[in-house]
Amino acid sequence: MKKIEIDTAGARSKILVGESWEKAGTFLPGTGVIIISDDNVFRLYGDKFPPFPVFCIKPGESSKKLEVIELLAERLLGAAIDRSGFILAIGGGVVCDVAGFLASVYMRGVRCAYVSTTLLSQVDASTGGKNGVNLGNAKNIIGTFLQPEFVVCDPSMLMTLPDEEYFSGLAELIKTAVIGDEKLFRLIEDHYGEVLSRDRELLELLISMAIEYKASVVSEDERETGLRRVLNFGHTFGHAIEMYKSAKHGFAVASGMELAVSYSFNRGYIDASEKERIIALLKRFDLLRFHDIPDDQLYQYIVHDKKKTGSEIYFVFTSGIGRAFAEKVPVSEIFDFYRQNRKDR
Amino acid sequence: MKKIEIDTAGARSKILVGESWEKAGTFLPGTGVIIISDDNVFRLYGDKFPPFPVFCIKPGESSKKLEVIELLAERLLGAAIDRSGFILAIGGGVVCDVAGFLASVYMRGVRCAYVSTTLLSQVDASTGGKNGVNLGNAKNIIGTFLQPEFVVCDPSMLMTLPDEEYFSGLAELIKTAVIGDEKLFRLIEDHYGEVLSRDRELLELLISMAIEYKASVVSEDERETGLRRVLNFGHTFGHAIEMYKSAKHGFAVASGMELAVSYSFNRGYIDASEKERIIALLKRFDLLRFHDIPDDQLYQYIVHDKKKTGSEIYFVFTSGIGRAFAEKVPVSEIFDFYRQNRKDR
Repeated sequence: MKKIEIDTAGARSKILVGESWEKAGTFLPGTGVIIISDDNVFRLYGDKFPPFPVFCIKPGESSKKLEVIELLAERLLGAAIDRSGFILAIGGGVVCDVAGFLASVYMRGVRCAYVSTTLLSQVDASTGGKNGVNLGNAKNIIGTFLQPEFVVCDPSMLMTLPDEEYFSGLAELIKTAVIGDEKLFRLIEDHYGEVLSRDRELLELLISMAIEYKASVVSEDERETGLRRVLNFGHTFGHAIEMYKSAKHGFAVASGMELAVSYSFNRGYIDASEKERIIALLKRFDLLRFHDIPDDQLYQYIVHDKKKTGSEIYFVFTSGIGRAFAEKVPVSEIFDFYRQNRKDR
Repeated sequence: MKKIEIDTAGARSKILVGESWEKAGTFLPGTGVIIISDDNVFRLYGDKFPPFPVFCIKPGESSKKLEVIELLAERLLGAAIDRSGFILAIGGGVVCDVAGFLASVYMRGVRCAYVSTTLLSQVDASTGGKNGVNLGNAKNIIGTFLQPEFVVCDPSMLMTLPDEEYFSGLAELIKTAVIGDEKLFRLIEDHYGEVLSRDRELLELLISMAIEYKASVVSEDERETGLRRVLNFGHTFGHAIEMYKSAKHGFAVASGMELAVSYSFNRGYIDASEKERIIALLKRFDLLRFHDIPDDQLYQYIVHDKKKTGSEIYFVFTSGIGRAFAEKVPVSEIFDFYRQNRKDR
């Protein structure tokens, strides 16, 4: 088991990688706890949940809306949860996003923690303190930064994940490797078989490496005013593809990374061999998908992007495996690049 | 003009008492500003608003709901307001509560400031950083703590207030005097006529004294884990009366203060003469109302009170004019006290 700490202004979050999720109950207060989960997770693991009331949301992105926050708040109120309450999320990114946002606004803030049940949320969504809900098609428009007190990342929970969900998470793992950890990238390359077979020991190592990198970034720049922007690598186009194609987040980000790598190459930031190496890894795990977002739709997605400021957008480039930086690029240039590189095959 | 600062972890808020509200525009960025106001305020002052898009909500408590937050967020998105945006609220407590909450969650937080147009919001709601919306009957259940960058409190705006609105604010002014500033209490007693006639100079003095006290409390305890609780003086019963009678906040708090003063007297915390002096001032301005909340309803209001932790509630007592403290009291004792003191005349 590996314990990684995220320190931000006024908050400390402990990420427990490899801890058994069944021990989460021992870290909780004795009363006033509410568990938020989804129907799938509850079906698989509900019988071993800590002994507190459970409110389940519907699985999937459609639960990320204010209406669900309002319903859950009403249920908390009905259960007489007050300011001293504690919300434990047990689920993937959607559950953690919803529960985290709820915890940050219910009674102006109650304590919270996550048991993160998917690879995507273990390596990305549940660490770092971002939460939020969507507004129509626009992702995560309403949310806050809130560091959960602890996050349990138990790789044994990943064995029950559907393939699609697992590989979606793998894409974010590769993203982390590309932007911040060349050694992690090589480990994934070198252990193709174990990654496919979900080797528990390897996963614990890969996940803790990814979280260590992310924790170092978030501890330095929780509010994304600088360094943290690099975590959005592949996400500018990724979010657009995710919306347009209703694609799973990781696959959309993988295609977004392919574009970002090519863009980095076009600008001379990365050489051909590294570009090919990154794209080869994405292809090897079959993470890339076709996409051809019409211009007007792309415009909608991009202008609503939170990374936009004025008529420019922070676009994340890589300058070699393990290195990335954000640079302001005119929105019009982003369009032009996409028009020349959409994969309408 | 008096400038009062509120310093909390990571934020500084400037309260400008006596500043002309028409100067607010000079403190704003040149672009990306959205003004949130209500129909009444816009009708009176809209022609002098700074030159930015204005979104008006309906006046009154019914606008304090998540649905309105969602609608406003959609309008911000439609106006291409991004993370670098700035929300200026021009209005009373409801407008500031809604705009402040919106600013704290839109794109995970944008900058904001208030022009506070009512006495109630100048002395209370707009300073201190609390915001939020209601959940059905339960007040301010969804919200955050967010210090606006500045708050303009221009007493000349109070001249257009309906009497009911003005006296509602006066009740919170008296509350502040009772809990924290005996000199302020005496000034209000001694200048009855000028208070009634809304003497501009006197108001500027009274408002700045009230804000100075509140700023000192909030700077020490933004999140209400201790000292700040005293600001809730009169509010435990006040909120219940407000809900049950659909009374204006200040009048409900005035009746809540009458109860809290009697409760303090019953417990021997305050002597008869000071008790009478406080109640006499509330009566002189005709702030007290009848109320007889049925037991079952009172129970609902009290168990949903954010000041509750477990089966006890922090109740605020006064130990003499200018002094107050919060003490945990069993919810059952609160009920008993109310049953013996409801004003069902």
